[in-house]
Amino acid sequence: MEITLESPLDMHLHLRDGDMLKLVAPLSADFAGAVIMPNLVPPVTDPGAMVAYGERIATAMGDSPFTRYMTLFFTKQSEQQLTLAKETPGFFGYKLYPAGITTNSEGGVANLAEAESTLKMMEEMGIPLLIHGESHGFVMDREAEFLGVYKHLAQQFPKLKICMEHITTAAALDLMEEFENLCATVTLQHLIITLDDVAGGALQPHLFCKPIAKRPHDRDALLQAAVSGHPRLMFGSDSAPHPRCKKEACGCAAGVFTAPLALPKLAEIFARHHALDNLQGFVSGNACRIHGLTPAAKHVTLHDTPMNVPTSYRSYGQQVVPMYAGEQISWSIKH
Amino acid sequence: MEITLESPLDMHLHLRDGDMLKLVAPLSADFAGAVIMPNLVPPVTDPGAMVAYGERIATAMGDSPFTRYMTLFFTKQSEQQLTLAKETPGFFGYKLYPAGITTNSEGGVANLAEAESTLKMMEEMGIPLLIHGESHGFVMDREAEFLGVYKHLAQQFPKLKICMEHITTAAALDLMEEFENLCATVTLQHLIITLDDVAGGALQPHLFCKPIAKRPHDRDALLQAAVSGHPRLMFGSDSAPHPRCKKEACGCAAGVFTAPLALPKLAEIFARHHALDNLQGFVSGNACRIHGLTPAAKHVTLHDTPMNVPTSYRSYGQQVVPMYAGEQISWSIKH
Repeated sequence: MEITLESPLDMHLHLRDGDMLKLVAPLSADFAGAVIMPNLVPPVTDPGAMVAYGERIATAMGDSPFTRYMTLFFTKQSEQQLTLAKETPGFFGYKLYPAGITTNSEGGVANLAEAESTLKMMEEMGIPLLIHGESHGFVMDREAEFLGVYKHLAQQFPKLKICMEHITTAAALDLMEEFENLCATVTLQHLIITLDDVAGGALQPHLFCKPIAKRPHDRDALLQAAVSGHPRLMFGSDSAPHPRCKKEACGCAAGVFTAPLALPKLAEIFARHHALDNLQGFVSGNACRIHGLTPAAKHVTLHDTPMNVPTSYRSYGQQVVPMYAGEQISWSIKH
Repeated sequence: MEITLESPLDMHLHLRDGDMLKLVAPLSADFAGAVIMPNLVPPVTDPGAMVAYGERIATAMGDSPFTRYMTLFFTKQSEQQLTLAKETPGFFGYKLYPAGITTNSEGGVANLAEAESTLKMMEEMGIPLLIHGESHGFVMDREAEFLGVYKHLAQQFPKLKICMEHITTAAALDLMEEFENLCATVTLQHLIITLDDVAGGALQPHLFCKPIAKRPHDRDALLQAAVSGHPRLMFGSDSAPHPRCKKEACGCAAGVFTAPLALPKLAEIFARHHALDNLQGFVSGNACRIHGLTPAAKHVTLHDTPMNVPTSYRSYGQQVVPMYAGEQISWSIKH
């Protein structure tokens, strides 16, 4: 069995910077493009820094055609700033983080009401808003508690394209049904794992991420929505590399590294659910339609021949442990 | 401010064996005694092994008077076996683990129905049953799902003394109210932390334990029951040392090590709640009354002078990281 995907996209990707960027960028090169997260240190808040970061990514990526959909770290913006961003080549949208909610998000939004004038202008200018939607409440409730904010924004700005990033709950899917201007990304791991996989047996730091994996019924709902071809659900890996020494330690950083195995594993999952026909939409078609994207032309053929996932990826003095490290996935990319 | 406790008891303690036993046993020596868990490798299933283990503990403990309340790992027993256990000096009761539910519990009970003839005899002979009460369900629901088993046993064996070990939920407290023959232990950490402390920020392996810490409302209910002097709630630390290298690693083992700081931290908590008068009952009185215990005479004075918790405890080639490693507790033991 095999399937050829046209220009697969990763709609939520962390590439970091420096040596880590050099290590991980080529590991996303089977994708035709990706939406690049701006939470560097310091965060990418202005178009100049964004362009420079995009050039570092291009260098790290090498020869592979790869369309960079760059994001800016959301803070309150003037019309002039928004216009400048919109006119900057490669700009895709703003990523909004509630302050302090995840890796390098300390400078995020503390009071959403103050952001509304910016959001109004973004709505008028057709600039997408991507949101890390979690409250500061109890870890298992954070996404559910944030849904009211999504709802408020969806009602307040009916033409604003609002993307609920890396959703993890059935309730988020339910909310998406209510509003045409909501769409969502979902990661690989949230289609597969629950909190049981993180902390139900021995503690598994390499499966620890934000938002944290939820209940079986949430995972099942996300998987069902993905394989059934939900038109506003898009693949966004949230692949988030951290050095091995920061994952296997007291105070482990949040993030699962899935970029190099995401497409094979997705093919395995969709094949198991007799839903390979819906994979193209999930990994590219929905995003292209919703956002009007025309990524680099790339054909990626996947087949049901096993892939052995390395125990880690190392170079440039960096070491990252992927999901399924040392295990086998039953599909792979045909090179 | 100070308080002198008479013969404080730890009603649920893991002392391990070998070099780890040598390291951790003296760190419980401020207690007058403890109920010792039998989940060694292999588990302590017969009185001979139990007596030998008790002697190793006595050697490791040194000169401090310390009453060992020894337990046997529950498996189906004959009347003759129960009689032998009951007549063995130092024997306290049976500890029942559902198979595979926590550290070294693989040989536990897979089908509780088969255990009922043993429980009937234990009821008649006045032998306490201590239970690690978790189902094999979703990690946040395991204790709640097991409550039906406790209820069934409490109804079926109304004279059997059933101790719900290390309870973590408000629902377990509610169940205890329904049945006079149920009592419970609670750990130090479950009076303090929630899942947020384990996985709400960076992942904290040293706070990862089974049962896992639950929701704020559960923690608050347990704390309230403890400081208000609930007559059937007893302190059981479940202090569970693992080598540092097994905690700060991929696949971190479950257990929080609290033995050396439990009494100072409990005094701090009870003082903060103006409940120092209820501390004696929580750490000794309730257990002595419920089980008819007469532990070694020991007076332990605690005062509101800070204790600096070591970053780790090391000797005999072992290293264990305690809760509050490198931090300060505002009470300490007066030596």
